[in-house]
Amino acid sequence: MALACTQDVILLLGDSLTQGNVERTGLAERLSCVYVRKMDVINRGLSGYQTDWAIPVFEQILAQQHAHRHAPKVQLLTLWFGANDAALPPSTQHVPIARFKSNLVHLVHMVRSPTSAYYSPGTRIVLITPPPVNTYQWTRERAFEETEKYAEAVREVGGQVGVPVADVWTQVWEGAGRDERGCARFLQDGLHLNAAGYEIVFDAVMKIIEATYPEMHYDALQTVFVPWSEVNVDDPRPSLVKRRAM
Amino acid sequence: MALACTQDVILLLGDSLTQGNVERTGLAERLSCVYVRKMDVINRGLSGYQTDWAIPVFEQILAQQHAHRHAPKVQLLTLWFGANDAALPPSTQHVPIARFKSNLVHLVHMVRSPTSAYYSPGTRIVLITPPPVNTYQWTRERAFEETEKYAEAVREVGGQVGVPVADVWTQVWEGAGRDERGCARFLQDGLHLNAAGYEIVFDAVMKIIEATYPEMHYDALQTVFVPWSEVNVDDPRPSLVKRRAM
Repeated sequence: MALACTQDVILLLGDSLTQGNVERTGLAERLSCVYVRKMDVINRGLSGYQTDWAIPVFEQILAQQHAHRHAPKVQLLTLWFGANDAALPPSTQHVPIARFKSNLVHLVHMVRSPTSAYYSPGTRIVLITPPPVNTYQWTRERAFEETEKYAEAVREVGGQVGVPVADVWTQVWEGAGRDERGCARFLQDGLHLNAAGYEIVFDAVMKIIEATYPEMHYDALQTVFVPWSEVNVDDPRPSLVKRRAM
Repeated sequence: MALACTQDVILLLGDSLTQGNVERTGLAERLSCVYVRKMDVINRGLSGYQTDWAIPVFEQILAQQHAHRHAPKVQLLTLWFGANDAALPPSTQHVPIARFKSNLVHLVHMVRSPTSAYYSPGTRIVLITPPPVNTYQWTRERAFEETEKYAEAVREVGGQVGVPVADVWTQVWEGAGRDERGCARFLQDGLHLNAAGYEIVFDAVMKIIEATYPEMHYDALQTVFVPWSEVNVDDPRPSLVKRRAM
């Protein structure tokens, strides 16, 4: 038994911050709740991964052209990396900042470039910056200033390729009163977000959707199957044919 | 851009109890967290729907044979109905108990019968009983004894077709000290579960997986993409080829 393509999807590509699962308060869970019956939210967060490793993964999680007809269409894609790329050498996770930026551009071009095998002009993209690291909480292989540079790199890439950026780094930093120790309010362990941190992420992504992709806002979509009160009780079948959410 | 079939899925078909979204503590969220990077959990809960309306929906959310190759494979299916079928006449949601039972059998046969267009001998099925209704909280169109009968009907169908039943009704009832008012501990409004109620549901489903489908337990599965510490740093690509979770 296989799943049909009833709902388009929101695809989340990233590292442990995307993978989430902290008390079920992560980005995927929050988006799933508001988009229920409208879009499936597909969590492709891979704990510990950085952009060097994300590229071969991204190639595999996207359908090849011949399979497109039966595969769920990606209407929105979030790209959220940097937290592990910013690991300090000699960590095997470390990706030099210039390559981090070119990797991000590569991920965007896989979707945006007409010559790409994955070209998809209809897919909306949101870049997300990594949150600040609180090195008083997280003492291994990270430096506050280094992660800050990677967050800045995400903003630069966004400007360069014309993709909106959900600037989690800055919003957590401001929320923490511009104090590294204050970031503990939003981080469970100095690197990973807690529920308050994910609330910032969700709000930032939703603000971008509202401003840049309003047609993708959950309130602008209809449920694929009609609300139960609209089912034609005398002849249900025709009223139960799936509709496009958008 | 379309999604490739990287992960098999756990499909949840049901009504508002499946649709969930109460503070993100629903069944889908709980399963998504433990199966992250192993199985996608697809929420096809439709608030207000009963089994008459679920059948045409189920036909559409399953892939037809020719599309199977590119569509995610359903390894586990939960069928959770009864809460709306048990609505009292003249509610348009009401489904007489005999038809409720034959509808449930029909849904199971769609998967189990070799002559079905959706025949899938490899798909594991779990039936779930509706929780008790607390009519001191929920005063419209429901009766405690009526929903109890529909829960019993689910158990009977399970025995008849050989599908294990997660008996949420009984477990909530026992947890409430066999007292209708006591069910408020597990219900947010007398009909829909709260976080404590969903914990019972999740535990009941996981116990069935452990006992009947142990190969599907999240601890028995591997991540589709290797844990980051197993990526071959010198030659990442071959180590980043997707694997089967099972």
